[in-house]
Amino acid sequence: MRNIDEHTITAAVLERMAGCEDARLKEVMSALVRHLHDFAREVKLTEAEWSAGIEFLTATGQKCDAQRQEFILLSDTLGLSMLTVAMNHAKSPQATEATVFGPFHVAGAPQLPLGSDISGGAVGEPLFVQATVRGRGGEPVADAVVDVWEADAEGFYDVQRPGAQPQGRAVLRTNAEGRLWFRGVAPVAYPIPTDGPVGAMLRATRRHPWRPAHVHFMIQAPGYETLITHVFREGDPYLDSDAVFGVRSSLIGDFAQHAAGRAPDGSVQEAPFHTLEFAFVLEPAGV
Amino acid sequence: MRNIDEHTITAAVLERMAGCEDARLKEVMSALVRHLHDFAREVKLTEAEWSAGIEFLTATGQKCDAQRQEFILLSDTLGLSMLTVAMNHAKSPQATEATVFGPFHVAGAPQLPLGSDISGGAVGEPLFVQATVRGRGGEPVADAVVDVWEADAEGFYDVQRPGAQPQGRAVLRTNAEGRLWFRGVAPVAYPIPTDGPVGAMLRATRRHPWRPAHVHFMIQAPGYETLITHVFREGDPYLDSDAVFGVRSSLIGDFAQHAAGRAPDGSVQEAPFHTLEFAFVLEPAGV
Ligand SMILES: [Fe+2]
Ligand SMILES: [Fe+2]
Repeated sequence: MRNIDEHTITAAVLERMAGCEDARLKEVMSALVRHLHDFAREVKLTEAEWSAGIEFLTATGQKCDAQRQEFILLSDTLGLSMLTVAMNHAKSPQATEATVFGPFHVAGAPQLPLGSDISGGAVGEPLFVQATVRGRGGEPVADAVVDVWEADAEGFYDVQRPGAQPQGRAVLRTNAEGRLWFRGVAPVAYPIPTDGPVGAMLRATRRHPWRPAHVHFMIQAPGYETLITHVFREGDPYLDSDAVFGVRSSLIGDFAQHAAGRAPDGSVQEAPFHTLEFAFVLEPAGV
Repeated sequence: MRNIDEHTITAAVLERMAGCEDARLKEVMSALVRHLHDFAREVKLTEAEWSAGIEFLTATGQKCDAQRQEFILLSDTLGLSMLTVAMNHAKSPQATEATVFGPFHVAGAPQLPLGSDISGGAVGEPLFVQATVRGRGGEPVADAVVDVWEADAEGFYDVQRPGAQPQGRAVLRTNAEGRLWFRGVAPVAYPIPTDGPVGAMLRATRRHPWRPAHVHFMIQAPGYETLITHVFREGDPYLDSDAVFGVRSSLIGDFAQHAAGRAPDGSVQEAPFHTLEFAFVLEPAGV
């Protein structure tokens, strides 16, 4: 212990946690230390690179505030978020796949009745969503709590606009037949925020910041596993290069464009509008 | 790319950096992603654990300010700092070994003449340091810039005290014979700051936060590799369990205690005092 070098230090750090009674914490921290050290040894990390890493992580933390979660962005762009999601959800062929949560969900969004316009005045072409929520056996899931959030036609979530009111987000509940319908705006591809350390990392590694157009859904119902997912827009040019690796084929939906005329809610639209139909299938809880 | 899962995502992230022209950045980032993903897969990281990790890193960044560097503390306590130091310094048997920089150095410390009291009034028993700075061939290194910093007898650095003036830190220069002498206070073992996320991590893993007593030195001279090191106090009970893994046998010095009487600087001390003699040996630059 008095002659630590790059070969003996890993065992020394692991030994220091010998007294940790939380077996899972000990397992996770021990693996973290091993892999962190292996990384540093493999690349023979220089002291200047270590300093740059410290500065990067510090700046990432300091970029975070009530509206901004730069460490989630970092995890998303390094693929850690999608990896974690993929490992933790059963993939029965019938059930809807999960994808990344992302940094733009806000708890306590407005609770609105079915059929509402959730846009809150956000710019964009109208989108009429008609969805079903069912269990794997095909049974409708009534009264499911459905959190929806989306960016506007300029690619911004409400929380990215200073002092904004809720726009493009709502909490709805499915009806007795497990049906859900609402009006929003047609999503567009958007760049994740690039004015922070994650943006600098993307530029330095020559990666683009774009995500294909999508609408976020989080669906919760007693007896079912909570589903956190997106529906992506078919035809989007970024479907094969999502900056956060969240795309799955099964989550691509047809955001059909329609000429001005009668919309699914019976209203007459004087400009083009879009419709999306999507069938969500929930896993039973605790499998 | 549309069917990312926990097995395919690592290759997908690496592929995304294909256009990075900075070969070293690409190498470091690619290794980071591989080891990060391997860690998550090995422990099958849960989503709750992922969330806890995001919160921990965010809190670590937000704890940092002009006086506090919590990410360096994290790197130090996980052994990454010492690992990086150990990898990056030649270990010729003659030269003084390097150790961790730590979070308490302050640039622009008072420049004081040889023989000064650097304590600035800090509490503690007097310590009289007499050191030499030589090259590997034994040649004295004249006019070397020697940054010294140490905690006081209560275990605090000046920057840990609100609104404090510089205490226990100075920049000195060796004389023509490569000699260095100054007065400070005898160092004591101290706990690293535990009021932040790193303290919580140490508690959760049942690790103590103590560092054995030491004085920090950074020695810079043209033609020599900069030496960042400590001199530790022989007999300290934490020499075998330094919270940041920085101890090396060769860096342990004899902080001899003396009864009241005449000190090395000729002054008469009316209370006990300490002396330390240490010989620093620098590596030539660019080896
Ligand atoms: Fe999004
Ligand atoms: Fe220290």
